[in-house]
This record gives sequence, C-alpha cells and structure tokens, in this order.
Amino acid sequence: MENDVIEKLIEQFRTLPGVGYKTAQRYAFSIIEGKEERATRFADAIKEAKSMVGFCKVCGNFTQKEVCPICQHRNRKIICVVKDPKDVLSMEKVKTYNGVYHVLFGTISPLEHRGPNDIKIKELLARVQTDEVEEVIMATNPDVEGDATAMYIAKLLRPLGVKVTRIAQGVAMGSDLEYADEVTLSKAMEARREL
Amino acid sequence: MENDVIEKLIEQFRTLPGVGYKTAQRYAFSIIEGKEERATRFADAIKEAKSMVGFCKVCGNFTQKEVCPICQHRNRKIICVVKDPKDVLSMEKVKTYNGVYHVLFGTISPLEHRGPNDIKIKELLARVQTDEVEEVIMATNPDVEGDATAMYIAKLLRPLGVKVTRIAQGVAMGSDLEYADEVTLSKAMEARREL
Repeated sequence: MENDVIEKLIEQFRTLPGVGYKTAQRYAFSIIEGKEERATRFADAIKEAKSMVGFCKVCGNFTQKEVCPICQHRNRKIICVVKDPKDVLSMEKVKTYNGVYHVLFGTISPLEHRGPNDIKIKELLARVQTDEVEEVIMATNPDVEGDATAMYIAKLLRPLGVKVTRIAQGVAMGSDLEYADEVTLSKAMEARREL
Repeated sequence: MENDVIEKLIEQFRTLPGVGYKTAQRYAFSIIEGKEERATRFADAIKEAKSMVGFCKVCGNFTQKEVCPICQHRNRKIICVVKDPKDVLSMEKVKTYNGVYHVLFGTISPLEHRGPNDIKIKELLARVQTDEVEEVIMATNPDVEGDATAMYIAKLLRPLGVKVTRIAQGVAMGSDLEYADEVTLSKAMEARREL
C-alpha cells in the first residue's frame, strides 16, 4: 500500500500494551476519519502528558511536581509497596489509609529476566532507613510473582527493625464460593479469624 | 487526583473505538512510562497521518494524493462497493481483481438512524453514469445491514443498465460444517453449483 504515513501511525499504536495489528489499524483509521482538531488534541495530550508528568522522587509514582502530594502531606512512617502506578490509584480507594506509597515498577520475575536490581527495591530500603518507617505494607499482586517479591523484600527489611505486613488474601466480597479457586479458598481458611 | 494532564490523555485514548477507561489508562501510563522520543514520535505520527492523508475524490478511500493509485491505474469499468476503507485492504488480498473500489463509509441502518443519504450512494450513482461502468460488485458485509444496503443499491443501479453482482455467501474455506450457523448453511445450499 502507498499509504506509509498510515502504516507509521499503525506502528505507533502497536507499541501500546496488548494492541495487535488489527486493533492498531482500527485506531489509526478512526484518527484519519475523525476531525482535524481531534487529531491535534490527541497528539498534544500525548506530548503534554509526557513532558509535564514525571516521577515523584520519593515514592516513584507519577506526578507533575518534584514530590507528589501524597508524599508531601501524609504520614511517611507507613509505606504501602505496590507494583505499578495504577495500583496506587486502586489502593487509594481505601479512604482510611493515610500513609504513603512506594512504586516498585515491576516484580521479581526470573521468567522475564527481572531480578531484584531491576525494580526499585534499593530506593525502598533507603527510605525505610532515613524516614524512620514503622510499617511497610506489601501490596503487590496476590500471584506467584507478587508473593515472591513481597517475601524477598520482607527478608531484606526485617533486619532493619521495621514491621512488614502483607495485605490479606481470601475470598472477595460479593463473590460466590462456588467460583473461588482452591488456592484462594485455602488461603482464606488459613487466615481465618475468630468472630 | 492532581494529575489532570494524565486524565486528559486518558480521555483522548477513550475516544478510540472500543476503548474503555481501564484500557485508556493502561495506554496513557505506557506513554508516560516510555521514553520521551516515543511520545514525540507517536504524537507526530498522529498529526502527520491526519494532515497528509485525505480521501480519494473518486472512490473515497484513504490516500495521500487527490486520486488514489488504484483509481489511477486500474480498470474503472468494474467497481467493488465496500463499507469501510479497511474492507478495501481485505478485498485487495484477492490478487486477481483489477477493478476499482467505492467506499460507502457505512451501511444503511435504521437502528442507528443512518439512511441512504448518510452514506456515499449518490457518489456511486454518479460514477456509474460517467465512467460507463459495466459491473458493480456489492461487497458489503454478509449481515442484515450489509445485505439490505446491497439490495437497495442494486435496485437503484439496475435501471442504469449496469450489471450488479453480490459476492457469494457460503461456508468459509477451512471451516467446519459442525460450527456453521443455519443461515450460512442454507445460503450455501441455495447457491450450490454443479460439479
């Protein structure tokens, strides 16, 4: 096809996570079929977001300032450790939490050749030491990699005299036991509490 | 959240077909986590594609010229009518086809309030009259709207003395009869040919 600028746009859309050729083509065609202003607004939003949003130098989360509002205004003695910036948004649904966060940007994954030095563990250790942190809550995903990363970090933190906790695993609220998998059920049994 | 430039980018990604909030967020985060050059390249590709790609004034398909290469170099006496530009790409897999195309940009759909005047039917009639067209092949999708649109256009074209055909409907090559639906099977029976 002669339309190499279309191909170039399709290629760009393919760099987005989980987007294959057909989907990228649909996206590109929707840009071309759309209005000029929309394309301009879209392109500007990409450049603006990339240029104005950086990483908080304390927790690593996205922010437009040097230190994000959460790190600026909340209790730095409790750190909730998450895998990705989007997980901060999820945890923020817990309105009662007043501590800060630490974004690892990944989990330890031998399969994907990601070791402890490829994620932000060193930075976490430094924070724990300088900020006199009392508790580190491991809120990585409840899967093999998330669990392994939580265990690994807990082992490094314990000698520093900090309390390390893990968010509870069990059956989700509103879910149906019938559809819960056996690992979840056995975790829920293990962690049972007296009523 | 303070990050309104991120929200603005998420909003833009949501304008793409079939993209909800979570997906748009993933896309936006991938831009912000990515390199500066990538964001620039992405934004430029959007602007460039929109500004350089227009519509062929003959067939309506995307092109960087006034008249697309297909309309310029191929047999204009045979027109294959399709719904969308992406369908031209699909039909071009039929390497033996040497005719041209006509893009309707939609099908007649009472449910979506799209009538004959909302798609490019007038333009097709004009082409048939001025280019002394011999055959119009209706290649709209084999669904209710595609069939209805093909029938409607055929009725308008027949008085002009042009041959109007429809691409065959039947069981797909390599498919399994067990999984073919009854409409497809009955169409395949109806259109059976002697061996």
